[in-house]
Amino acid sequence: MSLPTEYIGVIAEKSGGPEVLKFVKRPIPELDDDELLVKVAAAGVSRPDVLQRLGRYTLPKDAHDVLGLEISGTVIARGSRATSAIGAHVCCLMNGGGYANYAVVKESLTLPIPKRCAWSDAAGIPEACFTVWYNMMEVGALQRGERVLLHGGTSGVGTFAIQIARAHGAIVFASAGDARKVEACKKLGAHYGIDYKNEDFIEICKRETGGEGVEIIMDMVGGDYFARNVDCLAMDGRLIEIAYLRGAKVELNIDTIMNKRITITGSKLRPLPMERKARIAQQMQRQLWPWIDQAKVRPVIDKIFPFQKVMDAHKYLESGQHVGKIILEIQ
Amino acid sequence: MSLPTEYIGVIAEKSGGPEVLKFVKRPIPELDDDELLVKVAAAGVSRPDVLQRLGRYTLPKDAHDVLGLEISGTVIARGSRATSAIGAHVCCLMNGGGYANYAVVKESLTLPIPKRCAWSDAAGIPEACFTVWYNMMEVGALQRGERVLLHGGTSGVGTFAIQIARAHGAIVFASAGDARKVEACKKLGAHYGIDYKNEDFIEICKRETGGEGVEIIMDMVGGDYFARNVDCLAMDGRLIEIAYLRGAKVELNIDTIMNKRITITGSKLRPLPMERKARIAQQMQRQLWPWIDQAKVRPVIDKIFPFQKVMDAHKYLESGQHVGKIILEIQ
Repeated sequence: MSLPTEYIGVIAEKSGGPEVLKFVKRPIPELDDDELLVKVAAAGVSRPDVLQRLGRYTLPKDAHDVLGLEISGTVIARGSRATSAIGAHVCCLMNGGGYANYAVVKESLTLPIPKRCAWSDAAGIPEACFTVWYNMMEVGALQRGERVLLHGGTSGVGTFAIQIARAHGAIVFASAGDARKVEACKKLGAHYGIDYKNEDFIEICKRETGGEGVEIIMDMVGGDYFARNVDCLAMDGRLIEIAYLRGAKVELNIDTIMNKRITITGSKLRPLPMERKARIAQQMQRQLWPWIDQAKVRPVIDKIFPFQKVMDAHKYLESGQHVGKIILEIQ
Repeated sequence: MSLPTEYIGVIAEKSGGPEVLKFVKRPIPELDDDELLVKVAAAGVSRPDVLQRLGRYTLPKDAHDVLGLEISGTVIARGSRATSAIGAHVCCLMNGGGYANYAVVKESLTLPIPKRCAWSDAAGIPEACFTVWYNMMEVGALQRGERVLLHGGTSGVGTFAIQIARAHGAIVFASAGDARKVEACKKLGAHYGIDYKNEDFIEICKRETGGEGVEIIMDMVGGDYFARNVDCLAMDGRLIEIAYLRGAKVELNIDTIMNKRITITGSKLRPLPMERKARIAQQMQRQLWPWIDQAKVRPVIDKIFPFQKVMDAHKYLESGQHVGKIILEIQ
């Protein structure tokens, strides 16, 4: 089979609404030693893609201007040090370049497609699961029996976080914006669902933990949630920031931190050093992949758009109606 | 030898200046299984004692109203499960009760007096070293070759922190309030001394680390130092709060935390669970005691006051002139 020399990808020509997205044709670059060329089957649509389109995401130096942080597909070529089989079905975390019919990926961030997963399921795993695994399992060091509060329970990250925390033996509180979404959180395994528009998450967490609060909060809200999250934490609790939809500037009381021995931390997935991402991939394959194989953790796909409808996919993500991942079917 | 039935201790009769300190006579309580009765030789005078006197320290439920968090002395009786030799020379971390001629202590928080240490040296070790070991070594997980910034370099905690960080192979930045104190920090092993009244600690730390900043800051200042500490941290840096002399309420930017993957945490030593304190004691005996024996780490005693002059000792601590620990000689 002769290899393709060009690919079609989607860039944001300038900062703005979904209408700035544009299809471009580019030459496929030569593979580095540690890279694979993948014929893309499906790509995940993630919030950082939208932030990048809006010009609100500081891109790491080596980032791709083609959008898309995760794909599934078939390996069709490999660099000199790569060992993947040609024809292998993989899914992969990327530093951009996923909204494309062919993509160059780092072999170390590539994982086999789990059993029973369709292309579209597999494309929705990497970005959310690397985020959850790094923050909740590695940084947060979630322990069996600990109590975890997950805001944004029906987001792509949230749907995986609920299931992973549950599979790991944690007690899961999940917040979402309406009764339908709260129900979805519970179906995914949340012990307690919180309708944040009508209920007070602190009150519910404190009541259900005998006043103690939760050990871990993975937060994507920030703003006025910050102090409330701190209030909601138990002794030795960990607050992990992965986004701040309601604002980044917050107030902190050092005395509260000291009294409860709270740890506050946060990260962005994309600028993480390669070797750390590779280690997360290895841990996920060892611990998370068996859970997916056993259907303890299932990718939740809300809607699949054809590649040509990428603008609609972005509009839909921004509407906030979804429960789970939004996927582009590429070919 | 017949055991004493009463002890003389110092309490703060009400909140206020050094004049509220008062000597009282009390019966010595019966020993619990895991306790020792110690004839006190010397006691350390620490900032939390002053805060307690001022009524600005929330006492844990089981705390003693007699001041004093650390002593050295001779074991003269032991509880049924305690194994220390009668006559053993020990120093000990306490939950209050140290400003006294006899004290009941938990055996698990007791350590042998290091070689070459006088009673007064040994009495100044526990409170500062437990604080440093827990925060900098255990929570901060300081690694060889990492860069650490220590504010309050000439405080009791600071003088130990500089030496311990240096002995552990870290690069040490220490700040202090005048040229004499900066010189003292350097003599203790700080690679860089910072006169915070005349120099910008961020500028110095950044310059000497090729713009990267420091991996760990142990802070006792808070207030306007908070945001500057965050600014001064390197990627994956840890900010550890142990006091907030300039105020507890501060502002935080979640985006900065996420971009640099910063961890912010803090603690108070006194309310730490007993089992954790006991574990710290074991780690200190294994790692820190040999450094003290080898004179890699030396207790820095600024001034020794006779027991009767406890008010003067408090006044002197509050004057901020000291370099190192202030000690009460009891008997």
